[in-house]
Amino acid sequence: MKTSLDCIPCFLRQSLDAARLASDDPRVHEAVVREVAEKAACMNVAEPPPVIGQKIHRIIRKLTGMSDPYRDLKDRLNQIALRLYPGLKRRVQASRDPFEIAVRLAIAGNVIDCGVYSQIAEKDIKRAIDEALAARIDTVTLEGFRQAVSAAGEIFYVADNAGEIVFDRLLIEELPLQKIVVAVKGHPVINDATRSDAEAAGVTGLVTVIDNGSDAPGTILEDCSETFRRRFHEADVVIAKGQGNYETLSDADREIFFLLKAKCPVIADDIGCESGSVVISRSVPLKRAQDDAKEQSHAGI
Amino acid sequence: MKTSLDCIPCFLRQSLDAARLASDDPRVHEAVVREVAEKAACMNVAEPPPVIGQKIHRIIRKLTGMSDPYRDLKDRLNQIALRLYPGLKRRVQASRDPFEIAVRLAIAGNVIDCGVYSQIAEKDIKRAIDEALAARIDTVTLEGFRQAVSAAGEIFYVADNAGEIVFDRLLIEELPLQKIVVAVKGHPVINDATRSDAEAAGVTGLVTVIDNGSDAPGTILEDCSETFRRRFHEADVVIAKGQGNYETLSDADREIFFLLKAKCPVIADDIGCESGSVVISRSVPLKRAQDDAKEQSHAGI
Repeated sequence: MKTSLDCIPCFLRQSLDAARLASDDPRVHEAVVREVAEKAACMNVAEPPPVIGQKIHRIIRKLTGMSDPYRDLKDRLNQIALRLYPGLKRRVQASRDPFEIAVRLAIAGNVIDCGVYSQIAEKDIKRAIDEALAARIDTVTLEGFRQAVSAAGEIFYVADNAGEIVFDRLLIEELPLQKIVVAVKGHPVINDATRSDAEAAGVTGLVTVIDNGSDAPGTILEDCSETFRRRFHEADVVIAKGQGNYETLSDADREIFFLLKAKCPVIADDIGCESGSVVISRSVPLKRAQDDAKEQSHAGI
Repeated sequence: MKTSLDCIPCFLRQSLDAARLASDDPRVHEAVVREVAEKAACMNVAEPPPVIGQKIHRIIRKLTGMSDPYRDLKDRLNQIALRLYPGLKRRVQASRDPFEIAVRLAIAGNVIDCGVYSQIAEKDIKRAIDEALAARIDTVTLEGFRQAVSAAGEIFYVADNAGEIVFDRLLIEELPLQKIVVAVKGHPVINDATRSDAEAAGVTGLVTVIDNGSDAPGTILEDCSETFRRRFHEADVVIAKGQGNYETLSDADREIFFLLKAKCPVIADDIGCESGSVVISRSVPLKRAQDDAKEQSHAGI
């Protein structure tokens, strides 16, 4: 997915958020905003937003001298999510359809996205939970997802953010644990989950966790480790969480189940839903779509 | 008031809004965003936001070839406001305190600010009216304002936006008409009111209207005509509407009554109120504040 011009003001806002997290010095904030604005003036908008985001957050880390500006915030978000976990777990277990409730909660957790929101409080997360439990959801895709994971030999779960990964755990626990590999980011960027967040969330104790070797706020396959790419291509089912993974993988050459909250109008527009929607989407891989089109054309449809 | 770093993402969003109003060509939109980002990288944040806004909107007009990108929108906003006017007028007349209701409605009209909002619908304006009528207001300043205008020989009313100027008319009609001079912008910028908007609102038929000779989305005194400056300095009471006038005149060397909706957190923070507040504020001119401080220091306070 290409970068929209609407992403550019958002990148600047995000840069300022990150600079303020990393430093109390207004001169540092100003230097960050100015350098990011300079980059924005010549960025390649044909690239997906996380490609630009990766460059911007490298600038921020360089100018602030902080290798992980969001570390304290990530710890706080994990703690909030872990406080909510026992109640949510009971809710899943008490449900007539624990799988569906776990899917809805995993999507609700995607509200914990510091790339989109400058501030996220516990009340925002609670509201997202209530909304995700009540929201209309694409039941056809949900059933397809249920069947795909139950038939799968290996499930590759591409996680998104710290805090959110506690909500992912609720869904992971409804899947056959021995078949799951969870992937986190290789290096810190925004509040994206790295290995330490998977540990904090208790996910490392449940399933195999690998990191993707990258510091992009999404999944740029050519920037990921060979292990990540192999797992990604060989898995029977790939689950990709959040906007950054959608932006980078929606054109990938394999089927993917995307679970996300469409938090910004650019993503919502690309998906074809309302801003704020609870999204479960099954991508049609480019090659298969082309084959289908060829077949239809041969059949004279 | 200085420009905040938070204004920079907002300038970029505003530029994109303006570019889209002025042209359907995505290449033009991109050129505007890139040139504004380049300017943002080296802008002087010691200047008030409207000084930067003036430069940015000159770029937009140059790149789009449109001398007044917001003209159609301004016409539509005037029409919406004029449709609401008769009902609001009855509301003022039926009130036990028509002056206070007219003040509240003039502030409500300040929601019609295309610099802040990408889109403004009639329902947003109606919501702002309901909020302004119900909101807490600084009654001490309101009473001071009432006394000041009733004692004034000349009242100088610095208007803000198209659409909003219809709401200003409600307040103007509660003041002694022959004592009022209304000032509008000299040239188009964002949806700021120019003479044609004062005409559309029926204000030119009521009171003297002058233009300030400037294309800044605020009041940069040194950029205004000599007539404007003379009226501004000689009037007994100056009323300044909206955020742009607050940003440029809050440090001016004379007393001003500011009427505005504090729509953005930067302004709200400067005023010391919540975002969204209905604000009537009486500025203490710098010179008088200095004299008062000197007097207090002499008196050993």
